[in-house]
Order: sequence, then structure tokens, then C-alpha cells
Amino acid sequence: MSINEKDELLYNMENRDVETPQPRVKRGGVHRPFLFGFATALCLVYLMDLGFEAYKFATLRETVQVASGELQTSWPPPPPYTEVARVARYVVHISDWASLATISTAAPIKGFPFANTASVSDGPVGLSSGTPYFYISNLDFTGKDLLTDARTTVSLSEAQSDYCHTSGFDPEDPRCARILLSGSIVEVKNGTEEATFARTALFSRHPVMKTWPIGHHFFFAKLNISHIYVLDFFGGASDVSVQDYYKATPFP
Amino acid sequence: MSINEKDELLYNMENRDVETPQPRVKRGGVHRPFLFGFATALCLVYLMDLGFEAYKFATLRETVQVASGELQTSWPPPPPYTEVARVARYVVHISDWASLATISTAAPIKGFPFANTASVSDGPVGLSSGTPYFYISNLDFTGKDLLTDARTTVSLSEAQSDYCHTSGFDPEDPRCARILLSGSIVEVKNGTEEATFARTALFSRHPVMKTWPIGHHFFFAKLNISHIYVLDFFGGASDVSVQDYYKATPFP
Repeated sequence: MSINEKDELLYNMENRDVETPQPRVKRGGVHRPFLFGFATALCLVYLMDLGFEAYKFATLRETVQVASGELQTSWPPPPPYTEVARVARYVVHISDWASLATISTAAPIKGFPFANTASVSDGPVGLSSGTPYFYISNLDFTGKDLLTDARTTVSLSEAQSDYCHTSGFDPEDPRCARILLSGSIVEVKNGTEEATFARTALFSRHPVMKTWPIGHHFFFAKLNISHIYVLDFFGGASDVSVQDYYKATPFP
Repeated sequence: MSINEKDELLYNMENRDVETPQPRVKRGGVHRPFLFGFATALCLVYLMDLGFEAYKFATLRETVQVASGELQTSWPPPPPYTEVARVARYVVHISDWASLATISTAAPIKGFPFANTASVSDGPVGLSSGTPYFYISNLDFTGKDLLTDARTTVSLSEAQSDYCHTSGFDPEDPRCARILLSGSIVEVKNGTEEATFARTALFSRHPVMKTWPIGHHFFFAKLNISHIYVLDFFGGASDVSVQDYYKATPFP
């Protein structure tokens, strides 16, 4: 190769882009700006998703979900555990169901302590009365038992909401609050103002009750509370006076 | 305008792209292929999201979620309501907590029917024994009551899973199954094979139990089942014999 030939080769190498320009925006058949646009959209979607997750996490800690059939209600978190009467009112108000303890009158287990699931409401959402109302039929175990002995304990556990789960509290952890209301179940007389309240309290939160068969003779009933135990922290249960209970409010 | 001028104008209009070519891929400062790429990515993400939602909806109907503290377990849906013994075994196995009914010995409510929340397990996930095990302390209401009268009813409601909610069943709807196991609570003697099973059953599903204070003298206990009621459909409760219950399996 002569010096001239070398020079020409170098010249050609340095200037090859000028002489035979490459296609500017092609790469493997796809436009480079197209790829940039694609990547930008993916990044934006990813960032939006991150933001949405952060928002969900932030709100998750601020609402307590309770589900009752097709209804789901979001509640504020519970009051501090030191405000025991308020905790009791809170758990009673957010609860959609409770265990009703009775002394069984059913032949095979006559005299046994018994507990049954009952849908409950102390008022429409946000309008807490503190008094648990039920819609009872004497065809049911509980209704039959109460005819013989009206004493009961209404046992309500915060485990029915998602609060204990999202807080990592086992159902038996005392911080997963338990409210134990003892007293007697009494019928709410039809036609009274209280019957109207009980109907609104129950039917607003358990709409299916409106359709329950007339032949089962359901009636509105309430718990006349005589004693209250609350377990909402380590160190054993607290007694709450009925007066303090009714004076307290579930929400600030 | 002379004919020559007109001709020149036409010539210029026809040939303006040749003479002063427009930027090929610009529009409002953004490359058109970039926009195409962006839109394609958004469409793909949207389609992926649709597919994910469809998948979630399909699986939602096929699993039942039960939460116990920090653990959450996915279960297959319940057996048909006609297979009553299997429904009983199913609800007992998926349940993480139950109501334990006792006759109260606490001074202010002595003799009252009482019910308390108790964490329960009849076996580690997928290994159902049918026997409900508990970890009991005699410092607790329930433990104290059982020392005087060991009879109890263990009341379990499907309402603690998300099955009733996603199916639109109110907690008191009989299709939101209730299992009512009556019998006596007996201690499981330490050092036996059954104590090992009870420990695995409870500690696997309630890990916090491992850390419960030694000073509270917790012991493993089980329900000796003497009678079973199941409410899983309209038309009243079914009796299930203890033999049929233990023969049945919760899953196909």
C-alpha cells in the first residue's frame, strides 16, 4: 500500500458518514423515537403505580373495614386503648355481628352454655346509640333459649374488622379488643319511637332483614346492659360502668 | 400577476417540499414516532391491566380468605350445603377464632351465660383433625369458668372469612354457615403425641402464642365434642353425628 493509498483509506474512514450517511432513526426496523416514547410511557405508568400504592398504604392505616353481607363500611381507627368506655362504644358501633350467649333449652344440649351468631346494630352508620339491637325469631335457638332465661352476654370482637389483621394482632391478642356486654334481652314494643330507631338501625346495615319471612315472627329486641367488660390491652379486663359507657362517644 | 409570475408560484408550490423540505417527524416539538411509541405502551399497559383484573376476578371466586393477625390464608370455597358434615369440618378447619360459651363465675355476672373470643386450630393448614384445640390460661374468664363447669359450645361463623361478604350473605343469613359444637373442654396432657399435634396446630396458625408469658400457665386443651348443630341453609339447623363429622373431610 502506497502512502497515498493509506491516506485515501484514512480519509475514507474518517468521512464515511459524510459519504454514505446511515439511516438516522432506524434500528432493527423500529424507529428510535418510538422506543423512547414507549420507554417514557412505561416509566410514567410505573411512577403512577408507585404513587397509587403509597396512597393506598397511607389510607389503609386510616380506615378500618367491616363487611356485612353485600355492604362494606369504612370506619376511622379505634380510640386509644386508655379510653376504655370509648373503645367499648366504638367496637359496638362498628360491629355488624356478635355472639349471643344463652343457656341452651335444645333437648340434646339442655343446660349447656350456648353461643350463636346474631346480626347487630346500635344505630345507622355514624349514629351510635350504644344499645345493641337485634331482630329475633322465637323459631331460632337463641330466641327459644331467651324465653326461658333472658340473660345473655353479647360478645363482640374487633377481629371481625380488618383492624387486627392489618395491625398484626392475633384474634386472642388483647389489643384486638373484645367487648363483653352482659344483661337481658327485651322486646322493643312495636309502634314506639324506639322501634322506629331499631328498625332504621338494623335495616340500614342489614338490608336483607326487610325480606325475612313474615311467618318467622321476627321482632325487634335490645340488650338491657347490666355489666360491661372490656379487653383492649395487656393486664386483664376493665370494668366499665353502664353510665360511663352511655356518656362516651365512639368517635372524637 | 403575469402568467410567468403565476407559473413560478405554481412551480414553487408544487416543488416546495423539494426546495425547502419540512422536518419529517416533528409536530409541536415532539417526534411523531415518539407519540406512537407512547400510545402503544399505554395501550399495552391498559390491556395487561384488564387481563390482570379478569384473572383476579376469576381467582377471587375460587378462594376464601381468612385472616388471623399477621397471617392470611387462602382456602378453596366451601363444600355444597347438602354435605352438612363436610361443611362443619370445612368451617372448623378454616376458622382462626371461635366464641367459647361458658357459665360465668365472675362475681358481677355469676351464673350468666358468657361468651369469649378464643383463637382456635384443628390442625396446621391442610391437615384437619376435626378436633378444635385451644391454648388456655386459668387467669382468663373462660379458663376460670371451665374449672367450675367444663361444658361449652364452640360457636364458629363463616362470617370471619370473606366468603359471606363476597357472596352477599348477611352474617345471620343461614348460607353464611354457623357450626355449633357442644361438649367439654379437656386438657391435653403435656408430653403426649396429641400435645405435639396441638402445639403444631396452634403455633403454626397463631405464631404469637409462642411468645405468650410463661407466668400465665397456658396449657393445650381440646373440645371433646358431644353434639353438633350446623346451620348452612334455609329450613333450620341440621344435627350431625360426631361419627359422621370425624369421617368427613373438609376438602374433596
